[in-house]
Amino acid sequence: MDINTAKQALRELQLKMYAYNYASAIVYLDAATVAPKNTSEGRGVAMSVLSGETHKLFCNDEVGELLTFLTEHKDELSDIERRETEVLKRSYDRQTKIPLDVVMEYSKLGVEADDAWHRAKETSDFELFRPYLEKIVEYQKMFAGYYDPTKKPYDALLDTYERGMNTEILDRYFDKVRSAIVPLLAATQAAPEIDDSFLYKYYPVEKQKEFNDRLMEVMGIDRGYCTIGETEHPFTTGTDNRHARITTHYYPEAPSFAMYSTIHEGGHALYELGGDDKYRYTCLAGGVSMGVHESQSRFYENIVGRSEGFTKFIFPKFKEMFPEQLEGVTADMFYHAVNKAQPSLIRTEADELTYSLHIMIRYELEKRIIAGELAVKDIPGEWNRMYKEYLGIDVPSDKEGCLQDSHWSGGSFGYFPSYSLGSAYGAQMLAKMRETVDVDGALAKGDIAPITAWLRERIHRHASFLEPADVVRNACEAEFDPTFYTDYLTKKFTKLYNL
Amino acid sequence: MDINTAKQALRELQLKMYAYNYASAIVYLDAATVAPKNTSEGRGVAMSVLSGETHKLFCNDEVGELLTFLTEHKDELSDIERRETEVLKRSYDRQTKIPLDVVMEYSKLGVEADDAWHRAKETSDFELFRPYLEKIVEYQKMFAGYYDPTKKPYDALLDTYERGMNTEILDRYFDKVRSAIVPLLAATQAAPEIDDSFLYKYYPVEKQKEFNDRLMEVMGIDRGYCTIGETEHPFTTGTDNRHARITTHYYPEAPSFAMYSTIHEGGHALYELGGDDKYRYTCLAGGVSMGVHESQSRFYENIVGRSEGFTKFIFPKFKEMFPEQLEGVTADMFYHAVNKAQPSLIRTEADELTYSLHIMIRYELEKRIIAGELAVKDIPGEWNRMYKEYLGIDVPSDKEGCLQDSHWSGGSFGYFPSYSLGSAYGAQMLAKMRETVDVDGALAKGDIAPITAWLRERIHRHASFLEPADVVRNACEAEFDPTFYTDYLTKKFTKLYNL
Repeated sequence: MDINTAKQALRELQLKMYAYNYASAIVYLDAATVAPKNTSEGRGVAMSVLSGETHKLFCNDEVGELLTFLTEHKDELSDIERRETEVLKRSYDRQTKIPLDVVMEYSKLGVEADDAWHRAKETSDFELFRPYLEKIVEYQKMFAGYYDPTKKPYDALLDTYERGMNTEILDRYFDKVRSAIVPLLAATQAAPEIDDSFLYKYYPVEKQKEFNDRLMEVMGIDRGYCTIGETEHPFTTGTDNRHARITTHYYPEAPSFAMYSTIHEGGHALYELGGDDKYRYTCLAGGVSMGVHESQSRFYENIVGRSEGFTKFIFPKFKEMFPEQLEGVTADMFYHAVNKAQPSLIRTEADELTYSLHIMIRYELEKRIIAGELAVKDIPGEWNRMYKEYLGIDVPSDKEGCLQDSHWSGGSFGYFPSYSLGSAYGAQMLAKMRETVDVDGALAKGDIAPITAWLRERIHRHASFLEPADVVRNACEAEFDPTFYTDYLTKKFTKLYNL
Repeated sequence: MDINTAKQALRELQLKMYAYNYASAIVYLDAATVAPKNTSEGRGVAMSVLSGETHKLFCNDEVGELLTFLTEHKDELSDIERRETEVLKRSYDRQTKIPLDVVMEYSKLGVEADDAWHRAKETSDFELFRPYLEKIVEYQKMFAGYYDPTKKPYDALLDTYERGMNTEILDRYFDKVRSAIVPLLAATQAAPEIDDSFLYKYYPVEKQKEFNDRLMEVMGIDRGYCTIGETEHPFTTGTDNRHARITTHYYPEAPSFAMYSTIHEGGHALYELGGDDKYRYTCLAGGVSMGVHESQSRFYENIVGRSEGFTKFIFPKFKEMFPEQLEGVTADMFYHAVNKAQPSLIRTEADELTYSLHIMIRYELEKRIIAGELAVKDIPGEWNRMYKEYLGIDVPSDKEGCLQDSHWSGGSFGYFPSYSLGSAYGAQMLAKMRETVDVDGALAKGDIAPITAWLRERIHRHASFLEPADVVRNACEAEFDPTFYTDYLTKKFTKLYNL
């Protein structure tokens, strides 16, 4: 093999992977949005064949040899090719280390476990799910050993979601988060309760849609490259830096749900769309990790969307569309209502202040489960104990407790921390951004452009070229430091609640 | 190779083709319905890679040997496997006979020709398109020679769209059609004009959608397997007998367009959805030819949807939803209005009576072009002459004349006749159906079930197992005979216009 042939093969491989990923993204989106509801069987057959083909395309000896060759000749590669090789090699090693029969067994277990989890959640019966979760945990420990036998198993898993992340960093992080948020939350709950009842009146869906279109416009999302659809659970998908799709969910009696999910998903979309053209059709296109992705989505959702400036800018537009529902409501009342802090059972409905506590509990449990220090059968008890300890609430059923999320049934151990890290990355970015951008001034004018320009320059345009920790370091010109996050929350909620 | 291995390979090949076709159908549908408008470039790259992969999957020596082996051992195959082998072998031969460099050149020409056609149509300037069309015609003649050098070139092309069809049959067919329709049309135009002005008032799109939902229900289309979307040009796509999608277009001031396009596409969908499960995930799933497909869509659109019984059944429901627009209008007026015959310029907007004349003109031109008897430069003149001769109208511009359809720019010579054959097949099916089904009684009650049951039993369930001519023979227990079609039109329009 000569180096130019190898470079050409690298390009072709990535182009093919782009094409297969394109097809699977669109089929997934179609299924979630508009496909007729009884068509999952035929789609499952097609997708299983295509994912098998995608796997064969990548996980074969020829690709292995190519990546080894390129790694050995990395001095002859451009920066981009070198990074592509690194990313692909890591993914190749991870995917090929596990024997094929184990992959097949695990994939079968995954289908059964998903089904069992759905039934268990419906009937709030953890025992139905327990035997499957026990097997999944055993597989996850085994996988961790394949990924990196030199690491603690949970560290090896964390690394697959947020490269470079480990329990040492996260223990310190969550200690800090816990010790800041728990007393802050207690103080807010002792303060007079914020009235948000006007956000639970009837807001016709058609008008909500119009308002959400306006939000996308304010965010500077070009609809020629990104449309908005509807699904049960909002998400963002994209195929390249010129094509993203977001979805939302309109609740007729809770307009702030669609509003903030649109802004959140819009943040993901801006990250995807902000990637430099030079990464298009390569494995470096798109966001680098879940943590960095959440840093962007939660930046727009909370730091922008729930800021005093932005809420007071957007409120008159909101009221103009819903004058009856908002009669007597002021911009300040609106700002307070969308920031109301309240311990709650369900992670996805949590407010900005309590969100990271939900994640912290999951992190602590996962860490102990994978370390073999907590038996699967003891999860419900521990879950409920920690919700009582940190959020001060009783969990009435496993359905609203440890069965609420799909992550464990899908084997995604190590994924949860990314959600919280994203918020913390975002707060540190905000502090750095304030050095050169008049953030509050921009928000008060509803002028998101200078904010997005900063994020684009420092984060978005790099797509997956930099490792997650390097993205943070590059953007903030400092190591990741959770103090920015706890300071941000303390300052915001102290003022909001007059503490 | 042993026979069981070969049979297994046959199944696997078809399953893979199903999966690739699934992906490409959904990406196409997504692009036509909801994709952001500026995303065609990235989609083009992905689709070009995937179609290349699909081509490689099928057009390789291994598949060639497999199909040859299976053909040689056809006595050891089941009926279905034998038919699968036959269909795949024919497709394989057709696709592999043309040298790859010719395919590549032609594909490049196709992109340029499509672009030139769009510009030519926009500016109504045939000269812009002429050089491309000349090249396309030369390629088509060359392809015909590759397909079957023993046939007249146009016959070889016709055979690719409607297996077994040729100019001998079609000359007789269109002679018959012409000699029946031309005088009948003249008579209708001499009769008092039908008033259809009430169909061109303002009908709000949201209410039209509700009405179209109702139409789908009346047609017995299960929305769990078939949804309806919106596109500029309505179409139907499907992936297997449990999954179809139709689209329509709502014009606020012409509700009958969406109404009849929904019924037309619904007919295509019922054909796709009516296939037997035993053909699922094989090359025999789905309709066998364009002609048979149009026989079903036009059966529902015209024979059902424009019948006296059905229009009078549906009118009260229509009027209930649009009482103001239809004030003073009776069911009989509605029946007449949706059947108004009128020579017109645009094929896709033609009524039931004149439609086949539009096709006949295209057929006559194509036949002469491919035979080398008509130069491309002379198409506009001949087109206009024939529209004057047969439809009695002057063509004011090539945009509304020979540039109106996309077929020739796409190289689809031999495709047009299928549209008209479909109507003729349908009329013959109707005559046979009347022997055992009280068609008029069912239509008057809006009870489509016995009609669909007959079509499903005789046509739909066979999917692509039978050749087009065998579908007609099997359904009608007779050879194809266009007299049924001309009799049907004569009877219907004589009564409608009191001739």
